Amino acid sequence: MTVEFICVGTELLLGNIVNTNAAFLSEKCAGLGLSCYFQTVVGDNAERLASVLKTARKRSDIVILSGGLGPTEDDLTKETAAKVCGRKLVLHEPSRKAIETYFQKRGIELTDNNWKQAMLPEDCIVLDNPNGTAPGVIIEEENTKVILLPGPPNELVPMFEEKVAPYLSALTSTVISSRTVKICGVGESKVETVIKDMIDAQTNPTLATYAKTGEVHIRVTAGAEDEKSAAKLIKPVVKELKNRFGDSIYSTEEETTLEKAVVDLLKANNLTVTCAESCTGGLLSARLINVPGASDVYKSGLITYSNKAKRKFTGVKKSTLHKYGAVSEQTAGEMAKGAALLGKADVAVSVTGIAGPDGGTEEKPVGLVYIACSVKGNVTVKEFQFGGSRSKVRESAVSAALCLMRHCILEYYSQVTFGKKN
Amino acid sequence: MTVEFICVGTELLLGNIVNTNAAFLSEKCAGLGLSCYFQTVVGDNAERLASVLKTARKRSDIVILSGGLGPTEDDLTKETAAKVCGRKLVLHEPSRKAIETYFQKRGIELTDNNWKQAMLPEDCIVLDNPNGTAPGVIIEEENTKVILLPGPPNELVPMFEEKVAPYLSALTSTVISSRTVKICGVGESKVETVIKDMIDAQTNPTLATYAKTGEVHIRVTAGAEDEKSAAKLIKPVVKELKNRFGDSIYSTEEETTLEKAVVDLLKANNLTVTCAESCTGGLLSARLINVPGASDVYKSGLITYSNKAKRKFTGVKKSTLHKYGAVSEQTAGEMAKGAALLGKADVAVSVTGIAGPDGGTEEKPVGLVYIACSVKGNVTVKEFQFGGSRSKVRESAVSAALCLMRHCILEYYSQVTFGKKN
Repeated sequence: MTVEFICVGTELLLGNIVNTNAAFLSEKCAGLGLSCYFQTVVGDNAERLASVLKTARKRSDIVILSGGLGPTEDDLTKETAAKVCGRKLVLHEPSRKAIETYFQKRGIELTDNNWKQAMLPEDCIVLDNPNGTAPGVIIEEENTKVILLPGPPNELVPMFEEKVAPYLSALTSTVISSRTVKICGVGESKVETVIKDMIDAQTNPTLATYAKTGEVHIRVTAGAEDEKSAAKLIKPVVKELKNRFGDSIYSTEEETTLEKAVVDLLKANNLTVTCAESCTGGLLSARLINVPGASDVYKSGLITYSNKAKRKFTGVKKSTLHKYGAVSEQTAGEMAKGAALLGKADVAVSVTGIAGPDGGTEEKPVGLVYIACSVKGNVTVKEFQFGGSRSKVRESAVSAALCLMRHCILEYYSQVTFGKKN
Repeated sequence: MTVEFICVGTELLLGNIVNTNAAFLSEKCAGLGLSCYFQTVVGDNAERLASVLKTARKRSDIVILSGGLGPTEDDLTKETAAKVCGRKLVLHEPSRKAIETYFQKRGIELTDNNWKQAMLPEDCIVLDNPNGTAPGVIIEEENTKVILLPGPPNELVPMFEEKVAPYLSALTSTVISSRTVKICGVGESKVETVIKDMIDAQTNPTLATYAKTGEVHIRVTAGAEDEKSAAKLIKPVVKELKNRFGDSIYSTEEETTLEKAVVDLLKANNLTVTCAESCTGGLLSARLINVPGASDVYKSGLITYSNKAKRKFTGVKKSTLHKYGAVSEQTAGEMAKGAALLGKADVAVSVTGIAGPDGGTEEKPVGLVYIACSVKGNVTVKEFQFGGSRSKVRESAVSAALCLMRHCILEYYSQVTFGKKN
């Protein structure tokens, strides 16, 4: 079954905003087993929109339009779609009521053009919109389903997840289910090599790899007659991936980010954490603290950007800075030790490097970063060479630091178990 | 003159990546005075690509395709475009040579399929690609120009800026030039009200507003026969905007971000800066430090997330925390004062607030943030109520903090000048 998307909006054509709706819809529909061959962006213009919609209806089973459902005269997606599909617009009383309630609740006065949003194509399926005033619409035709969704992502995303996805699932005879295995500390090409035989042999489930900064995700997708059967197909594949990648897998949950996995690991072991950051300048702490509830484990952190700050706050020795430089294994190690002491934290991570664009030398080029992690006094230091812009180097360093923390904590506890430490 | 874009790539159709090329090309072409009515995304499939390209050639003066110029069999944009335009592919010797050199320089062995990238449509304009191996191509037809660009943004962007933009400029009889007036600390609707008369009266130059987190940009765009005449049209409008918005304008330079403006202001006044962050958890420092050369002004910073850390590092009084709470004007003020002392900095900024999703009360709801700025001991504290998710609240707080810093420094020096301070 094929689907295509038509995103309506002048701000897209002017490049004022990036088309995240298309990416969202594409990813979700691919996950439902639908094939997408075309995406189109068109402005709020009845004639051009009609011509694009006519083409789409001819070549795809499902056409999803987003945007242009607002109350102003510019917004004409619904009017155009109704016309193309030969439907009249009629007043939809529950939508009128919902709009009224929406405005009353917020104490905003309704203007006449708001009622326009309650005029919907006859005989359509109405998707109510608790996050805005424009209801979604499904027009069922003999050969095509035309689906209209509001443009703002905070309205489109929940409407798709809650109403459109189940509707589309019911259309396809098979249920498509997927699970993502999230790996850190292993490069993409290494991951691909390790699972090459599995990819070559794949039919159902299928495997696909996605490279992120410092991470690789493997998505395992299966089609079956129901959720349970799909899960049954996926399970042994995930198990095999766990065999092959072991501790490098930080999660198999959709909503778990690397920083959340690290915060959860800290919590599970009753550990507190602190950071001493030079080139990342607060980014590592910011990512940890973006996890709700991070306050259980993160109490304080330091940004030691100058050499003086490295000495004053983290007690890096003058001789160390003199002999090895601020960007060195030795300085990183002393920063982590000092940060653990000052912050009275069980785990301390330090980052020092050359983010560029200036400051690089032949011996210490831009992108050279040292990251140290101290777990209860056991310090590990790693050297990295990252590429790209200043921002890219800093982002890569943050991901590598999270990965190293995770690795060092796991390592520490496995050795404690075997009686090697403490 | 009309332009449209065809972005080629399966990863776009699968939603694995967001189509930033379309946004970039749209914005740039709008800036050149070209009208864009359509954007299309299509996969690496000769038949579908050909059909889309045929439609585009009929309705637009310029068609820009991106992606699918790589060396693998999947990549068939060039082959398809050549066929649709009735051109043969012939070996382009300079491109062959460039590819050879590219690989030699990097010590990578060439594979046979790399030569495919030197086969170009006959009689085309070749755009060399110093950042990759796929040259760009312009096929000039009687009614249409078909332009092929590589997909990776780090190749497409410089090729467009350096080669395609001048080519398109020469096609249009007018030069389109624009300047952006960047405002912080004034809301979008306020900005629109202040310039409503200018927008209503606009013909050439035109004005457009763009809302960013904590900022509003006004783009002034003029068309003229040459750069100089365009600049002459823009100048009085920018001057009028400066009259109306005064110090709220932080820059009129394309490449100057708010954080760069703040770092420049600190540098110009020989000031050092430090931050004490609670809910933003390092994001503010990270944004300042992302400005190359920030080390001149930023030496150290603190993340004081727990109450204990607020007391220990920034000397917030126990009684203050007890009486007013961690999220209060008083705590913010003491954090800034203490941070200035500990960091021996001229300027200190503190942020404390409730980022959510939990932790809000009726009295202190999620999104409540206090930001304090101390300039040589003179402390200003402001209360903010932000909306949105945890990330959004934190980002808004960072922008507001940068804006407050700028305001307090300007205020301090204007008062020093008038003899009110020091």
